[in-house]
Amino acid sequence: MEFALEREAGQGGPVYRQIAAQIRAEIAADRLGAGERLPPIRELARRLGVNRDTVALAYEELSRAGVVESSVGRGTFVTGEGVPAEPAPPFEARLSPLIERLLDLERARPRFGSAEGAVPLHSLIPDPRLYPADAFRKALGRALLEGGPELLLYGGPQGLPRMREALATHLVEHGLALDASELVLCHGASQGIALAVRLFAAPGECVALEEPTYNNVLHTMRGLGLETAPVPMRENGVDLAVLERTLSRPEVKLLYTIPTFHNPMGTTTSLAHRRELLAIAGRCGKPVIEDAYELDLRIDGKVVPPLAVLDRSGLVVHLSSFSKSLFPGVRVGAVAARGRLVEALLALKQATDLSDAMPLQAALADLITSGAYARHLTRLRRVLRGRRDAMLEALEEHLPEGSRWTRPEGGYQVWVELPEGSDTHELLPDAVAAGVLFAPGYQFNHDGRASRCLRLTFAMADEAEVRRGVATLGGVLRGRGAAMPHRTDRVSI
Amino acid sequence: MEFALEREAGQGGPVYRQIAAQIRAEIAADRLGAGERLPPIRELARRLGVNRDTVALAYEELSRAGVVESSVGRGTFVTGEGVPAEPAPPFEARLSPLIERLLDLERARPRFGSAEGAVPLHSLIPDPRLYPADAFRKALGRALLEGGPELLLYGGPQGLPRMREALATHLVEHGLALDASELVLCHGASQGIALAVRLFAAPGECVALEEPTYNNVLHTMRGLGLETAPVPMRENGVDLAVLERTLSRPEVKLLYTIPTFHNPMGTTTSLAHRRELLAIAGRCGKPVIEDAYELDLRIDGKVVPPLAVLDRSGLVVHLSSFSKSLFPGVRVGAVAARGRLVEALLALKQATDLSDAMPLQAALADLITSGAYARHLTRLRRVLRGRRDAMLEALEEHLPEGSRWTRPEGGYQVWVELPEGSDTHELLPDAVAAGVLFAPGYQFNHDGRASRCLRLTFAMADEAEVRRGVATLGGVLRGRGAAMPHRTDRVSI
Repeated sequence: MEFALEREAGQGGPVYRQIAAQIRAEIAADRLGAGERLPPIRELARRLGVNRDTVALAYEELSRAGVVESSVGRGTFVTGEGVPAEPAPPFEARLSPLIERLLDLERARPRFGSAEGAVPLHSLIPDPRLYPADAFRKALGRALLEGGPELLLYGGPQGLPRMREALATHLVEHGLALDASELVLCHGASQGIALAVRLFAAPGECVALEEPTYNNVLHTMRGLGLETAPVPMRENGVDLAVLERTLSRPEVKLLYTIPTFHNPMGTTTSLAHRRELLAIAGRCGKPVIEDAYELDLRIDGKVVPPLAVLDRSGLVVHLSSFSKSLFPGVRVGAVAARGRLVEALLALKQATDLSDAMPLQAALADLITSGAYARHLTRLRRVLRGRRDAMLEALEEHLPEGSRWTRPEGGYQVWVELPEGSDTHELLPDAVAAGVLFAPGYQFNHDGRASRCLRLTFAMADEAEVRRGVATLGGVLRGRGAAMPHRTDRVSI
Repeated sequence: MEFALEREAGQGGPVYRQIAAQIRAEIAADRLGAGERLPPIRELARRLGVNRDTVALAYEELSRAGVVESSVGRGTFVTGEGVPAEPAPPFEARLSPLIERLLDLERARPRFGSAEGAVPLHSLIPDPRLYPADAFRKALGRALLEGGPELLLYGGPQGLPRMREALATHLVEHGLALDASELVLCHGASQGIALAVRLFAAPGECVALEEPTYNNVLHTMRGLGLETAPVPMRENGVDLAVLERTLSRPEVKLLYTIPTFHNPMGTTTSLAHRRELLAIAGRCGKPVIEDAYELDLRIDGKVVPPLAVLDRSGLVVHLSSFSKSLFPGVRVGAVAARGRLVEALLALKQATDLSDAMPLQAALADLITSGAYARHLTRLRRVLRGRRDAMLEALEEHLPEGSRWTRPEGGYQVWVELPEGSDTHELLPDAVAAGVLFAPGYQFNHDGRASRCLRLTFAMADEAEVRRGVATLGGVLRGRGAAMPHRTDRVSI
């Protein structure tokens, strides 16, 4: 029997436990059989250069577990009971500290309680009544029939060439001149965010995020062990002075931004703001992750080129999504990057989950190249215009004085700021009881601090529902006291 | 104009750059227009409490960039050119150190070069000729027709109840008594591995992995910033004495193990080994992640219960996969866990990518509950038996003396140990040239050190191809010198 003991503090645990474990292992491996005698305590202690008490403790532990028997004067013998499992105490999982922090954040999500029948102005999930579900089903059937079993192999980390080519062609409409080889498909844009961020920021480092920002990104960063530096949103995008200070900090590795139809604010930054943002990132030498998740959903207003179009240095990693413009279930997002970043994205995607489902990518490619996606967008934008106008009119009519809100030119969301002293989280239960849901602003803050803002959407609710929901919200607000009279005048932000 | 300056070292960069940036931001936000005069240097220096030279430097930088113009005696004026982007130097992305390490590992993958027509004994991807592709296509069509647009919503982080119930019922065949609420579906078992590991181990911490082990897990751990502690594989599973020493180290947070049809070894551990492994993990208080990715692929031999069946304390997180038993493209894996771990998995899945594609889960549930999956398994196991027997016979016939190999009772892989002094990575180009591919052993070692072992599979190759491939390999080995005579006797491991 040979022993390998770790004596350094903290390595391998107490020495007597190590000795006992190795004897158990010898028995489990049948190198020590029933009835065989263990070396005398004195002899083993000498061989191992340890105190006799240490060996005695090891033998005692084995004896208590029934693995060996000691007989006074004769020695210590293997019982032949094999190595019975010790009576198992319930295992108390010690979760990673990152996971504990993530659970704290998870528990802080708003609870809507019994919200059956309430108008869903809280949700950024597009309305299933508008999905081209039948076209998708047929495209999927065709893809599987034509693709055969090969379409059910791993697709490789970059994704189906046909889908990347269709997306590259589609992105030209937004001014992006990309080769299909510069696109990495991913499992929804959510995965794309994590992949892109991990390119530049290692656990313990920091990323600059807007505040307020897309709340699930805060969860993603926490799960990855990344700190976040808030850059406050102004009426036209992030505060650029704070941005430059933030990106100048060496531990801040990148900016994640939603320049078009911001979540939760609904705002779109100007060309000048975009140019200056890129100049700042360039001066600081920090990359910019542009989340263009609603880029295809412009209702009206002047088109502003994406950051990736304005970028002349390769600073920008651009994320595309179909979850809002088509439906979430397609689970196809894309990361556009240059040169070495593509190689790095592929290695990371491979290490993360090997490959996405090619049938879904093939069906989406079919929808895009056949023109079905473009036709769907035309119809969707028309519906969104009606819903947005209904929401803005209803807000005008029903919200109390001192309230302000944004006027989105696309996407699904309006950001409402209530009069000073409001706390929208505290307001939520009354709204739910009255029959309307909204997303309270605290959850878009990095530290979850109270907010007088809330996000309303016209994603899941149609025009009539939008009007009813906003009227209900107005009623709740007026009901909460004379401090909020029915408004006759306000400034829109 | 209000200024916020960070004067602490390392915060916000040089003060003059901060001043210049804030002036740019004022202009970008249209709060400072063309022709407007900046405050005199002396006045601004006094207001900010900085040296005049600092302000002068800021104005000079802006002047060089064309943003302002100075006119002697009159002052400094905004040019009205907006804030032109500075000439952009190409951005050199500084990748996260984790990504650089991952790329190193990626570059060390074997290159098969021009392998057209070679027998693919290297691949662990199941053979498309065996996929029930037609049944899947029809199941998917049915699912989308019956599910309607709702099936294209986010499915939530836990996955479709119907699929979880089907899997829970299926797992009963393996002795697992799980409720559907204890299953979290994921995007392939690869994602499941990452989710399960992240529950317990934070970046910088360590996980115990077998050596050799599934190579992509080494990539996954490196991408997550986790260190790995190797526990050597013996003929019947990991070395238990080393395991106990390793799991006793406080920084080692868990064991990841493949007890059934090990990758790459093809071996299955005994009941006694499993009991002892669980006892060790219990004593050390460390969870065990059991990767049961080929559990459904037993060809013959005695069934050994999964660790999750033997576990009485809730130590084991059990991973299921359909990538090897059905096809990879379905992208449905599952993590089975208890109590708080389920809550933690859901938070992590949500933060990772929100949800998987429900249509794929619905179609798979249909294949399982209709019996089509069971029928496919029966057929697949029969094919695998033929291929395995062909491989073992061919190895017997063609491999040189001093070679040893495992005899898998299921799955797709055989682990071959060549005579001392062999280096299978070095051997690969000759094999490729001769027309056979294999997976060299180095890539299954934590540190990528040379190995005299290699993995052969009968996943992609049919019986005739297996025989031809092994014969070719035997020829290559014999051709490499008298040191490897045609073998007449060997010990199987």
